[in-house]
Amino acid sequence: MDRDAYLERLGATADDAADLFEHFDQRTVEGRPYHALPDARHGVERGTVIVPDDDVVVRGYPSIPRILVLDPGIASFFEDAGTETIAIEEKLNGFNVRIADVGEPLAFTRSGYVCPYTTSRARDLLSLEDFFADHPETTLCAELIGPETPYTTHDYAGIDTHDFRVFDIRDRESGEPRSVADRRALCEAYDFNQPRLFGRAAPGDAVATVRSAIDDLDAAGREGVVLKSDDGTKLVKYTTESNHHGELAYAFSLPFDHGRDFVFSRVIREAFQAAELDEDGDRLRERAHDLGESILRPAVDAIRDVDAGETIGHRHTVRGSSAAIDALFDHLDDQAMTIEIESDRCEDGERVVEFVKVAESSRDRIAYYLEGGTRTE
Amino acid sequence: MDRDAYLERLGATADDAADLFEHFDQRTVEGRPYHALPDARHGVERGTVIVPDDDVVVRGYPSIPRILVLDPGIASFFEDAGTETIAIEEKLNGFNVRIADVGEPLAFTRSGYVCPYTTSRARDLLSLEDFFADHPETTLCAELIGPETPYTTHDYAGIDTHDFRVFDIRDRESGEPRSVADRRALCEAYDFNQPRLFGRAAPGDAVATVRSAIDDLDAAGREGVVLKSDDGTKLVKYTTESNHHGELAYAFSLPFDHGRDFVFSRVIREAFQAAELDEDGDRLRERAHDLGESILRPAVDAIRDVDAGETIGHRHTVRGSSAAIDALFDHLDDQAMTIEIESDRCEDGERVVEFVKVAESSRDRIAYYLEGGTRTE
Repeated sequence: MDRDAYLERLGATADDAADLFEHFDQRTVEGRPYHALPDARHGVERGTVIVPDDDVVVRGYPSIPRILVLDPGIASFFEDAGTETIAIEEKLNGFNVRIADVGEPLAFTRSGYVCPYTTSRARDLLSLEDFFADHPETTLCAELIGPETPYTTHDYAGIDTHDFRVFDIRDRESGEPRSVADRRALCEAYDFNQPRLFGRAAPGDAVATVRSAIDDLDAAGREGVVLKSDDGTKLVKYTTESNHHGELAYAFSLPFDHGRDFVFSRVIREAFQAAELDEDGDRLRERAHDLGESILRPAVDAIRDVDAGETIGHRHTVRGSSAAIDALFDHLDDQAMTIEIESDRCEDGERVVEFVKVAESSRDRIAYYLEGGTRTE
Repeated sequence: MDRDAYLERLGATADDAADLFEHFDQRTVEGRPYHALPDARHGVERGTVIVPDDDVVVRGYPSIPRILVLDPGIASFFEDAGTETIAIEEKLNGFNVRIADVGEPLAFTRSGYVCPYTTSRARDLLSLEDFFADHPETTLCAELIGPETPYTTHDYAGIDTHDFRVFDIRDRESGEPRSVADRRALCEAYDFNQPRLFGRAAPGDAVATVRSAIDDLDAAGREGVVLKSDDGTKLVKYTTESNHHGELAYAFSLPFDHGRDFVFSRVIREAFQAAELDEDGDRLRERAHDLGESILRPAVDAIRDVDAGETIGHRHTVRGSSAAIDALFDHLDDQAMTIEIESDRCEDGERVVEFVKVAESSRDRIAYYLEGGTRTE
């Protein structure tokens, strides 16, 4: 492939194509090679993909910054965005993929790898042929959500197994987004489910609407909101207390796999939220108690499970065609994951597999300390 | 100085003297140069000092490992130590210094720098002349404790301002410790205060004594214990719940200065202690609530203080001669600390200064987020 041409198409800041391309991983999907950039480098987004045989670039999804206070965070973030209003949309707790038509529709993960299972589910659940026939050079940005996915298990009312929510539609190569209004209309036209729109407000006037959305989402145990300029180019997120506590509980259920990376940032989110929103001491005390329980209980449970000789790890259920599920396990295997299958059965013509991603770091560290091993930190 | 000779005397694993000595910092104390190793390198302990004019090496104090469970942690740690019993001594929450006679007695910090204030206090409070006349090539390892020190502020019953506890006596150059019995007898002979000895027990039999010591210390808000082989060579520590929560509260009172480094390790200590010692759900719930409050309340207070325009930082009170206090502020200044003096007065013939070590990272990060700044983590 002509690396210099791709360097220019990507708008990379690297002086030399080799400086950028050494960071790309090469994989194949159904015999076709593709190159994925697993981390942001030289001004190119994480997850950017090149498929040289089809001369295609699929731009990575941008990292969305976060505000820690609503007032003046919202007004300050959109101050120079030149947007009349901002759209307040729900942020969903699921698995973020970009779906692009590269000869055929493929679902790429945040890191730029094809997930065969998500690809198969997207082809079943979304009218991709119609959409890509009309909009071939476009990427659908979607969240795979629900209790039965290989990546997340968050429950959503009305979703028994899994579903997609399309939250963005972008130019495949430039990453330029459709406006919020266009995207919502397109999703309606192609019958794609999309995140709830809580409303629109002028940036200087949005705090009350966002606070009320956050209150509702928090009460329902949902993640939070993304605020978007009308043209879709400026995005910022803000999340709920229940999301922070849920993420801490998730992290500390496997403390040596996720704990260190997760804990500080979630505590900081909690502290700013509490400083802004918890008017009285009782509310703050309750938040602190929930925070402590989110951290400590799952960690103690993990230690007791290892002590009892049980496998620890994240449990998932997936359902779909037998071939899609085989491809999923090959894909997880490629990522050097240790999987334990707990059940594998047929239900209503679909294959249903329950499995655990074995958390070897947490298992081994916990066992070491339980045997009396010492720690120097 | 003859670097190759020092390399050999230190028993360093570096092939070349330059590989080790590039890591030493050079300072002076009262015109005399000394070299301090601020981090462990090439098999040489952190804080090791060379004073070439006096041909002296002061070996760094070893890092003491920690067990996370008492059973089988204690038995396992001392399994091959060949010790008949272990001594269970209190670990104090203070400022750890080594005091050695290098022409004159000097107090060296963990990183190997001379602290002029601690030096002056040690000369006033400990009979150093008598001791070093008899034991010139020896290091006293002591903790400066009490509410009035420039480094820690932990309250101890019976200590109104500050005092020393001598917890170890070692050969200055080799670092070889005196046995526990010898050291305790020497401290008595020279009238040095020392940490409480809870008792001695065979390693396989010590859990009950340690648990009971930990319960007492926890109830008194004290730090924990160090378990020592009879010959003083094998040391391991274990700390109380109140210590973990106190350290978290300290860390999150200045979240962007200490929070990230502190939080994970303290949570892990808590989780293993709870898994071993918290028999029932109520006890675990109470621990979790205290943990959450230790983390969240001081962080929220810090945010509200910055919002109100107040200075945030650790507050300290010191008392002593005017010259010693001037030397202390020069020393803190050398470490690029920003100090705000809150009061400077004379009391009972001593100078007493109250000051704040201004926490610029926390102040600036909090102000940035309160103004609406975004976070990418």
